[in-house]
Amino acid sequence: MTGNRVVIIGGGFGGLSCAKGLRGSGARITLVDRTNHHLFQPLLYQVATAGLSAPEIAHPIRSIFRRRPDITVLLDEVMDVDLDARLVRMRHNQPVGYDYLVLATGARTSYFGNDAWAAHALGLKSLEDAVEIRQRVLLGFEEAENSDDAGERERLMTLVIAGGGPTGVELAGAFAELGSRVLRRDFRRIDPRAAKVILIEAGPRLLPTFPEKLSQNALDELRRRGVEVLLSTRVDDVQAGQVHIAGRVIPAHAIVWAAGVAAAGLSGCLDVPKDRAGHLLVEPDLALPGFPDVFAIGDIASIKQPDGTQVPGVSPAAMQMGVYVADVIRARLRGAARAERPFRYRDKGSLATIGRHAAVAWFGPLQFTGYLAWLLWLFVHILFLIGFRNKAAVLLQWAYAYIFYRRGARVVFGRDWMEDDAR
Amino acid sequence: MTGNRVVIIGGGFGGLSCAKGLRGSGARITLVDRTNHHLFQPLLYQVATAGLSAPEIAHPIRSIFRRRPDITVLLDEVMDVDLDARLVRMRHNQPVGYDYLVLATGARTSYFGNDAWAAHALGLKSLEDAVEIRQRVLLGFEEAENSDDAGERERLMTLVIAGGGPTGVELAGAFAELGSRVLRRDFRRIDPRAAKVILIEAGPRLLPTFPEKLSQNALDELRRRGVEVLLSTRVDDVQAGQVHIAGRVIPAHAIVWAAGVAAAGLSGCLDVPKDRAGHLLVEPDLALPGFPDVFAIGDIASIKQPDGTQVPGVSPAAMQMGVYVADVIRARLRGAARAERPFRYRDKGSLATIGRHAAVAWFGPLQFTGYLAWLLWLFVHILFLIGFRNKAAVLLQWAYAYIFYRRGARVVFGRDWMEDDAR
Repeated sequence: MTGNRVVIIGGGFGGLSCAKGLRGSGARITLVDRTNHHLFQPLLYQVATAGLSAPEIAHPIRSIFRRRPDITVLLDEVMDVDLDARLVRMRHNQPVGYDYLVLATGARTSYFGNDAWAAHALGLKSLEDAVEIRQRVLLGFEEAENSDDAGERERLMTLVIAGGGPTGVELAGAFAELGSRVLRRDFRRIDPRAAKVILIEAGPRLLPTFPEKLSQNALDELRRRGVEVLLSTRVDDVQAGQVHIAGRVIPAHAIVWAAGVAAAGLSGCLDVPKDRAGHLLVEPDLALPGFPDVFAIGDIASIKQPDGTQVPGVSPAAMQMGVYVADVIRARLRGAARAERPFRYRDKGSLATIGRHAAVAWFGPLQFTGYLAWLLWLFVHILFLIGFRNKAAVLLQWAYAYIFYRRGARVVFGRDWMEDDAR
Repeated sequence: MTGNRVVIIGGGFGGLSCAKGLRGSGARITLVDRTNHHLFQPLLYQVATAGLSAPEIAHPIRSIFRRRPDITVLLDEVMDVDLDARLVRMRHNQPVGYDYLVLATGARTSYFGNDAWAAHALGLKSLEDAVEIRQRVLLGFEEAENSDDAGERERLMTLVIAGGGPTGVELAGAFAELGSRVLRRDFRRIDPRAAKVILIEAGPRLLPTFPEKLSQNALDELRRRGVEVLLSTRVDDVQAGQVHIAGRVIPAHAIVWAAGVAAAGLSGCLDVPKDRAGHLLVEPDLALPGFPDVFAIGDIASIKQPDGTQVPGVSPAAMQMGVYVADVIRARLRGAARAERPFRYRDKGSLATIGRHAAVAWFGPLQFTGYLAWLLWLFVHILFLIGFRNKAAVLLQWAYAYIFYRRGARVVFGRDWMEDDAR
């Protein structure tokens, strides 16, 4: 028999799936997160583009585990993990000892070493990020309405997105619709349809992990919506209100960085093998080499499939890893031997939406686009949202937006915007 | 004929009703607000108590007037009004001239001269206020869960509300339910039912503007819910985490000031007659004395009824004043003579909610309480919310909360809370 104290760091898809999977296992679980909520990240871009409001895609973690007296949720920040002493040190709480540790802190935005760009280009990994992007874009329109200067107006209504993966594509399509449809009649001096969305991708095609046919469809649909797509283009520099690419400086009020992620900060505290972006390299059973009771799951981990490909940093993968590790721990608590089957990621398909009635769907040999793909995307996302209330509220919000082209979550508030003329 | 430029300062109930009432009048309207949204203030306490999220009680002003090409909405701050030159000066825009001016900037929290208290006691007049209160209370529970110190835990779970009017009563009841019902199962180390809500009122009864029988009912219902109500008690001092009353210092993590309002800051720029709290004294037709084309409506104005009583600072009054002034201006634009009927406030009744199934309702000689009053309160507020989406979303949210005792809007986010140990 082993001790049954399980500490899970991170309340995202990985951590939550693991905690859920441990139900009835006899484990005494402590789950620590820096925020009080579980975030449905695939829909974070909806908050950034004023389609949904923050509470609709986030659910308080305590609320999720109300009926699990075996889970103690702590709102705290993990400062350090002592792998030898088996202790987790936090900012506010006394250190917590563990018998099994699950690291599930996810990813953070990476500027590929150009950390100075973080001050001018907003990432999209948290609710704060999404709300800040939304605020910046909406206030850009407001300031343009207030402005006399044509050049200034153009800059205020220009948005640059770096990164042509699903996040960048979804943002670009949604922002294009914001100007061309949602805000169209709201202003009297500016024409929101003149707003420019520029999507920059370093590689030769959008959605590089998708099949070429779907990449082309995404490109066509975005261009049809007026998005300027620049392929095979690297960002050379980002300054306040400016993006520098080869031979061109783009003045832009809002700049979003969706071009790279790296492992969350916690990986920096751990003296274990990692890849270049800080992801923790794990054994086939997702344990850290040399520490069989410490697991890393989700975006903080780096693991290859049997066929040599990397397990992608997507929500379904994190959930599968969480469930897998819960099974491993459950077996150990029952006294089972350590040899379990290795983790295998089951790719159940990929979806990316581009705009109204336009999405791409990929299920192995099956690829399709357009209205059907979009309906499927809608259905899948509603299904997976956590919590009844969120599902119904999101459905209602989307139904309304669909029928009336009206985006609900455009309310802006916060104390400092009026005084901050330098933004 | 007169010029037809109408400038409305403020997008609350007064300003909006006036703008709506001017439809088809031939006026060219500029409406200026410091925020981008119209706020349904009667439900602001719901955001503060995590019952509703901000976008559910606020609606973008531009969105409301999409189909009114005669209205130009500006997101800006009015710095000064030149009554002689008939100019409105703003922070970002060029000055705007007017033929008719409507001042509808509302009220701000007043600490009765003790402005230092503002740093420690949160008001409730804006979305930022409400979100800050909610965050403070929820994080108080979180910090208590993290704490080892019994005295500290007690302080962190104590909330003091100053002011026994409808706002204070509604806040007290809702916060009592937050601890006793909503959060009950969410924590493992603390018991949220031990949270203390203390309501302080300087006068001899709660809801002083209501009939005595209803005041008594509110008092009984709050005490039944575990709220400590201190009547005939003045607040002597407010410091960080402490409220001083006669002979007692109450350590409290969250302190809310719902005890006083004064006219919004704009009144300070105007050299016209005002009352002690800065409200602008107006003629029977709501115009400023000596400036027949400048009107003040809503909470910024002070006007007596024919029977000598003050028109109360409530939403229905602001709406009626807005409609009245719109009629006055419409008549002037048609060339009518200046003598119109004076403004008369029609008291259509008052409602205040205390908690689940408990409210007070007052319609002239008709007074009732309990479940029926609560149902009526619910009905009236749904009805008056602006915008279909908001109505349905709020209804859904409340239905869910009612059935499951679950508050939806408890997601907390914001960058600085973890580092701010001094709070």
